[in-house]
Amino acid sequence: LERQDFSEFQPFTRDLHPYDLSQIYRELAPEERSHFLIRLHTQQLADMAETMTNREQAGIFENLGPDRSIDVMRHMEDSDLARFLHDLPPGKREELLSYMHLSDSSALRTLLGYPPESAGRLMTDRFISLSADDTAREAVEHIRRSASMSDTIGYLYVVDGNRKLAGVVSYHDLFFAEDDQKIETLMKKRVVFATVAMDQEEAARLIQRYELLALPVIDEESRLCGIITVDDILDIVVSEADEDVAKMGGGGKDIDFDTPPLIAVRRRLPWLILLLFIGLVSGSIVDYFEDTLKQIVALAFFMPMIAGMTGNTGTQSLAVVVRGLNGRKLTASTVWKLLRRELLVGLMIGVSCGLLITVIAYFWQGSLLLGGIIGVSLLATLIIGTLTGTCIPLVLSRFKVDPAVASGPLITTLNDILSLFIYFGIASRFLGML
Amino acid sequence: LERQDFSEFQPFTRDLHPYDLSQIYRELAPEERSHFLIRLHTQQLADMAETMTNREQAGIFENLGPDRSIDVMRHMEDSDLARFLHDLPPGKREELLSYMHLSDSSALRTLLGYPPESAGRLMTDRFISLSADDTAREAVEHIRRSASMSDTIGYLYVVDGNRKLAGVVSYHDLFFAEDDQKIETLMKKRVVFATVAMDQEEAARLIQRYELLALPVIDEESRLCGIITVDDILDIVVSEADEDVAKMGGGGKDIDFDTPPLIAVRRRLPWLILLLFIGLVSGSIVDYFEDTLKQIVALAFFMPMIAGMTGNTGTQSLAVVVRGLNGRKLTASTVWKLLRRELLVGLMIGVSCGLLITVIAYFWQGSLLLGGIIGVSLLATLIIGTLTGTCIPLVLSRFKVDPAVASGPLITTLNDILSLFIYFGIASRFLGML
Repeated sequence: LERQDFSEFQPFTRDLHPYDLSQIYRELAPEERSHFLIRLHTQQLADMAETMTNREQAGIFENLGPDRSIDVMRHMEDSDLARFLHDLPPGKREELLSYMHLSDSSALRTLLGYPPESAGRLMTDRFISLSADDTAREAVEHIRRSASMSDTIGYLYVVDGNRKLAGVVSYHDLFFAEDDQKIETLMKKRVVFATVAMDQEEAARLIQRYELLALPVIDEESRLCGIITVDDILDIVVSEADEDVAKMGGGGKDIDFDTPPLIAVRRRLPWLILLLFIGLVSGSIVDYFEDTLKQIVALAFFMPMIAGMTGNTGTQSLAVVVRGLNGRKLTASTVWKLLRRELLVGLMIGVSCGLLITVIAYFWQGSLLLGGIIGVSLLATLIIGTLTGTCIPLVLSRFKVDPAVASGPLITTLNDILSLFIYFGIASRFLGML
Repeated sequence: LERQDFSEFQPFTRDLHPYDLSQIYRELAPEERSHFLIRLHTQQLADMAETMTNREQAGIFENLGPDRSIDVMRHMEDSDLARFLHDLPPGKREELLSYMHLSDSSALRTLLGYPPESAGRLMTDRFISLSADDTAREAVEHIRRSASMSDTIGYLYVVDGNRKLAGVVSYHDLFFAEDDQKIETLMKKRVVFATVAMDQEEAARLIQRYELLALPVIDEESRLCGIITVDDILDIVVSEADEDVAKMGGGGKDIDFDTPPLIAVRRRLPWLILLLFIGLVSGSIVDYFEDTLKQIVALAFFMPMIAGMTGNTGTQSLAVVVRGLNGRKLTASTVWKLLRRELLVGLMIGVSCGLLITVIAYFWQGSLLLGGIIGVSLLATLIIGTLTGTCIPLVLSRFKVDPAVASGPLITTLNDILSLFIYFGIASRFLGML
């Protein structure tokens, strides 16, 4: 594509979308990258950086050197830049902020003052606000003057004298307005909005439900301070989904196809070592029931199946709860309804599978009592499995513990322990009768 | 909210967003619902139905009776209606189509002719197309005339004489244009587009990457036949994420907080019964090695841990692949890079955990050889676990098998079998030395 021939470089890249530029950048060998970066305009660099991960951004800024970096940062959207700065060590962040113009850095400090993952962090100040008293013609002139300021999102927000949000008008509506029509008569007064402190998932849900292109964000005094656009929300929705899948997989968070092996190991290993120790608890249960096991070795044949099945029902319940919890506030009645449902499901599944395994075990091992023990154990463990898969994430989210703790593997491993304990407990009780 | 007092009903509901209407509808007792529906305008009913699931839509149409239903359907967006019709039994679908005006039903038949989950199915024909030769003033007049036709999405598409897609202009750009400026000079010629047969996930990815509000869809002859809007894409992204989590949970697909228990059981049980039988294979492996187990019962202590750990690494790898596969086309080089990475990760994790468990087993059971057997087994099974978690979903997606088959529980259960086989295989080989 581009090797030595730099004369055609600028006409070629000028029309490219920032995402395409970032793809070219990624394909380049490290030593070619600085040649590439030097030849891009500051705004192109800023737009490209916005499409990249924090780690890639850091690489670019290192390549550009401090002066050019500050220049590029000035052209980036505040919300994207705030995300980058947030992940830097505090000293480095302060250094960068101190290099910037006071007006830029104070806007960034305000953004960084909102809680992480809040609507305030996501918003951009590139929006156009109109006054309700303006006529359509005045509004159009105002829009023309603020051209460079505005994102092309299709809505214009109307504020009153105190900068309080009063309504919304679309470009589309302005097209159909008479020149001297007042904005007040054009605008919709029922505006869906977010507050600066609102969780980003909740804001995403509003945009999705009401099929909006942008969501205005207001502060404690109902003043309009920014907007969140639907493209930022799409990124949030995708990364929330990634988090949920990682949760189900357990500790795979932030690992993708491009993560280097050592980093992947460092992120997965702590989890696995924790699970290894928890897994040994299962071992000590078997150890504790060694005598039972020695007398009926056949019990060992059904051990993997019982432990596995309990883990499986647990994971199924977990999947329902993980997605259901997403950005939703749970009322007590929802929780009770869910618990009753899952208990009932566990019971029905337990009875079906319990009966089935009783018959299988009877034909395989020729003992009805052994069959019965295994069937009853499976019934009990499946109910327990369903309930742990439901309750643990609910309890964790109630106490605002990072729900990643309730990962699939953890639930599976805990269910291993519970199921073996129940299984051998029931078996040793009926041992004399075998 | 509204019980007996219907006089204030229409002024109250007129300003409500369709999503809010649907929430009120859901809160109503079944017998109140028809009173509620009767009092809504046809367009309100159509908009509300669009925000609901197919099952809820069917309930509404049943409530409204055939004549009113057809009327409401005429006011619905084609893509939403096509989704509803697609899920009906063919006889019922034909019946509904035959009641409609020929122009409506033939448009729907065209949509239903595109493959399920394709861009063609998602698109709406409510867009405005301009000609490149128009002036800005002509364009504005054209837009005013087609007012009711257009979604307020912010873009206008430009087509040539053969209806081929030629460019895109935003409302925003039209605002800044001189009256007699040609559309040709305003439009951007580099348009990101989808084809009717393109997978909906791929279309979603384009919208996300290029931060678009809408994506034009063209047919085989490059003719513009519809647009996909970002709000439809948000729904797709959310439901794809739900599918991925369900995949990790195994068979929990389409189960949410409101699914009745019996339906939840019917969706989960087939999976569990399949897994039960696969789980019994693990049992028969233990059965096969019964003599080994009888001689060293201590082997049973480590069984749950080894099987569990293998399942855990497998699920971790699966989580990475499931999200990575999402809508992405894999090149051979990506696959090889991923496989090499996961093999390396499996090796490193295996060595770490293997050494750790060797030490633990030595101190617990006092036999270095037993410790070594368990350590080597864990090393081997962790590598195998990582590889199955990576390969199975890759192979399935390669052969276009529904990847829901490669669910977390299935991988866990298969890994149970493999790990027990390896574990007892290694142990029985060294049996003489213990």
